[in-house]
Amino acid sequence: MKVLVINSGSSSLKYKLFDLAGPKVICAGLVERIGSPQSSLVHTLYSDPGPGEKTEMSERFENHTKAIEKVAALLLAGDDPLVKSAEELAAIGHRVAQGGEIFKENCIVDAKAIEGIRNNIVLAPLHNPANLAGIEAAMVHFPGVPSVAVFDTLFASNLPDYVYRYALPTAYYTKYKVRRYGFHGASHAYVTKTLAGLMGKPLNALNNIVCHLGNGSSITAVKGGVCRETSMGMTPTSGLIMGTRCGDIDPSLPAYLTFCTGKSAAQIQTILDRESGLVGICGMNDMRDIHKAIASGDDNARLAFEMLCHGIKKYIGAYHAVLGRLDAIAFTAGIGENDSAVRGKCLEGLGHLGIIVDQEVNAGLRGKAARISTDDSTVEVWVVPTDEEFEIATICKDLVL
Amino acid sequence: MKVLVINSGSSSLKYKLFDLAGPKVICAGLVERIGSPQSSLVHTLYSDPGPGEKTEMSERFENHTKAIEKVAALLLAGDDPLVKSAEELAAIGHRVAQGGEIFKENCIVDAKAIEGIRNNIVLAPLHNPANLAGIEAAMVHFPGVPSVAVFDTLFASNLPDYVYRYALPTAYYTKYKVRRYGFHGASHAYVTKTLAGLMGKPLNALNNIVCHLGNGSSITAVKGGVCRETSMGMTPTSGLIMGTRCGDIDPSLPAYLTFCTGKSAAQIQTILDRESGLVGICGMNDMRDIHKAIASGDDNARLAFEMLCHGIKKYIGAYHAVLGRLDAIAFTAGIGENDSAVRGKCLEGLGHLGIIVDQEVNAGLRGKAARISTDDSTVEVWVVPTDEEFEIATICKDLVL
Ligand SMILES: Nc1ncnc2c1ncn2[C@@H]1O[C@H](COP(=O)(O)OP(=O)(O)O)[C@@H](O)[C@H]1O
Ligand SMILES: Nc1ncnc2c1ncn2[C@@H]1O[C@H](COP(=O)(O)OP(=O)(O)O)[C@@H](O)[C@H]1O
Repeated sequence: MKVLVINSGSSSLKYKLFDLAGPKVICAGLVERIGSPQSSLVHTLYSDPGPGEKTEMSERFENHTKAIEKVAALLLAGDDPLVKSAEELAAIGHRVAQGGEIFKENCIVDAKAIEGIRNNIVLAPLHNPANLAGIEAAMVHFPGVPSVAVFDTLFASNLPDYVYRYALPTAYYTKYKVRRYGFHGASHAYVTKTLAGLMGKPLNALNNIVCHLGNGSSITAVKGGVCRETSMGMTPTSGLIMGTRCGDIDPSLPAYLTFCTGKSAAQIQTILDRESGLVGICGMNDMRDIHKAIASGDDNARLAFEMLCHGIKKYIGAYHAVLGRLDAIAFTAGIGENDSAVRGKCLEGLGHLGIIVDQEVNAGLRGKAARISTDDSTVEVWVVPTDEEFEIATICKDLVL
Repeated sequence: MKVLVINSGSSSLKYKLFDLAGPKVICAGLVERIGSPQSSLVHTLYSDPGPGEKTEMSERFENHTKAIEKVAALLLAGDDPLVKSAEELAAIGHRVAQGGEIFKENCIVDAKAIEGIRNNIVLAPLHNPANLAGIEAAMVHFPGVPSVAVFDTLFASNLPDYVYRYALPTAYYTKYKVRRYGFHGASHAYVTKTLAGLMGKPLNALNNIVCHLGNGSSITAVKGGVCRETSMGMTPTSGLIMGTRCGDIDPSLPAYLTFCTGKSAAQIQTILDRESGLVGICGMNDMRDIHKAIASGDDNARLAFEMLCHGIKKYIGAYHAVLGRLDAIAFTAGIGENDSAVRGKCLEGLGHLGIIVDQEVNAGLRGKAARISTDDSTVEVWVVPTDEEFEIATICKDLVL
């Protein structure tokens, strides 16, 4: 059973083709700078152990439709095509940023779903239009293949009201849908299920925290497979310090910065999203660069690292309190999977919560699933590589079967 | 030794006269609606057990100077005046909202201090000018009496950089002083010292959390008497949900609300400060009203109560993680001292952190110091009534002696 997963951003498009029988990846690719004359596509064939032959193409893709037209050609063309015909695809799974309160389930896309995604554009003005463009292009170039919408917000769609509401006038919630939504849903869901499997525990008996730490980051608290807390808010600007996003700040600050700098609210918003976070503090957003800079005595890099670790520690403490009993913490995504210094530091001094890291095991671990807590840590700590595309493909399979 | 304490708000002025030899309160008063034709003054004489004879005056006070002129007359006039002459006052202590990074200590006010408070106006545009007006009027009407500035931000002035910095471009910190300051300093300091005394522990060996829950609220984590964390940020809009202030929200929200409502950034800021918080959720900001409404089935009141308790619980968890070892939690201010339902609910299910409330003792306790945790709770939980004015008077004494 073949499933294609598409993740379209405002000017990019990622795709990955799965054979779920394996399960294995057949190919994957990335189109960048859609709409600009410098757009490009990298298409990668997978062989058994992982990514293999790469083809790079510089080509003008005016829009998402043109990009998906090209993806269709790459998949369907040739003597021995990757996909013999559109019918061979069981489904195309689309990551959709914002499901709002309209979508309580992921779903096969029909006219009503398209309308719902469109109605949520106000909540995700950059992402939902790109996601819609991807869906509509896929319907044209892969005719007859069901499109599935997998919402980034779905995993957190069952938060209690006292968790998702902001302390703003009620009308802002009822009229303008102002509430906490949460993102990175496919990742938190995948990692939680994988963690339960690794621990040999039934999902419904597991209380866990997932630290998804990438260029965008979020932390969730999960009880029996159901998300109870998320650091992400109405938009992905909030929560933890991220690569370029500020995370939580004083609510008076946007207006104060407008007042001080004379910049417009929209300009300040761009700064909060693109020039803040680790980059704002030390000029870098890749933890590998930050560690190098720390080693050479850069105090701003030290500060960025400490702000990140301190923020993670506070979320772990808060969610530990809320969950009542914590069985395990999982680290995932670029930083969570690879950066043992961040993992070690944010868990330092948490022995009183029953969290003890085996520093040696932790230091040696990069990019693969393993437990990094000691045998006498009452809370198990794991590294669990995430796989959002595979999670999306699995959801597609469950929906179309 | 007599000390007068003055707390001037934007349109109000509170005063309290102490005889520190007792120590006892001699009188106190409140001037409201300064600048409006409806301004008024209530002057209360204290007798031994507490507030006694009250005098209410409707009088036009154009500004803080006129109000303080009247206070001076009330204190100094008559055959047997409360204060024989200005010289009998050892000091006048002024609560000053924002010390910024300029003030690392409370201080006797001189020209340099006035300049410093003035330079901080940009950070506290409503409060610092009122505080300055109070100081300058006191200098005129109580000539020769030293004025002492006690900064609301001072207790949190030793936070580590990774706690006080926001993840914004560094220039906003260096140029515009954007950082976490913290407020309610006199209360957190007073309660922490009192708590150490009640527990019979040296202050420098105590790790504690103070939950100051009033109409404005903040929570601090304190290690050996030194503040390490505060929920308050650059302004008092942030942190916990408060009576009318929103506390922490998604940083994209002010701009989004401007976009949705067409209101200006300044109007939105007013809504965040005056129409949000408990009032925004349920239309009430007095917990007594909220409990009555809950009892009669008001679901918005239930939500407001749960949001407050949940927020407190998350801060306790986060600060418990950061402190490493937590000896005690103290509840103070209007809600903290009086509302056993809030105390009980926010500490519910924290047995895994060693926090166990004696629900019977808790339920019966209002407005006085007592321990409300069980004997086998490893973290002691106390109610400690705050006394910011007394703390300010004590600071004055220490500075002028
Ligand atoms: N080997 C590594 N060591 C430390 N950090 C790493 C390493 N590899 C990747 N990262 C971090 O992971 C980040 C990217 O994470 P990723 O999950 O791919 O981000 P996103 O999907 O949010 O764009 C990089 O910016 C970098 O900070
Ligand atoms: N008996 C009580 N029970 C519950 N809440 C109370 C009680 N008394 C006062 N409060 C709460 O305390 C609040 C005022 O607290 P206070 O510390 O005086 O506020 P602030 O100094 O920040 O203005 C009131 O709004 C109310 O919610």
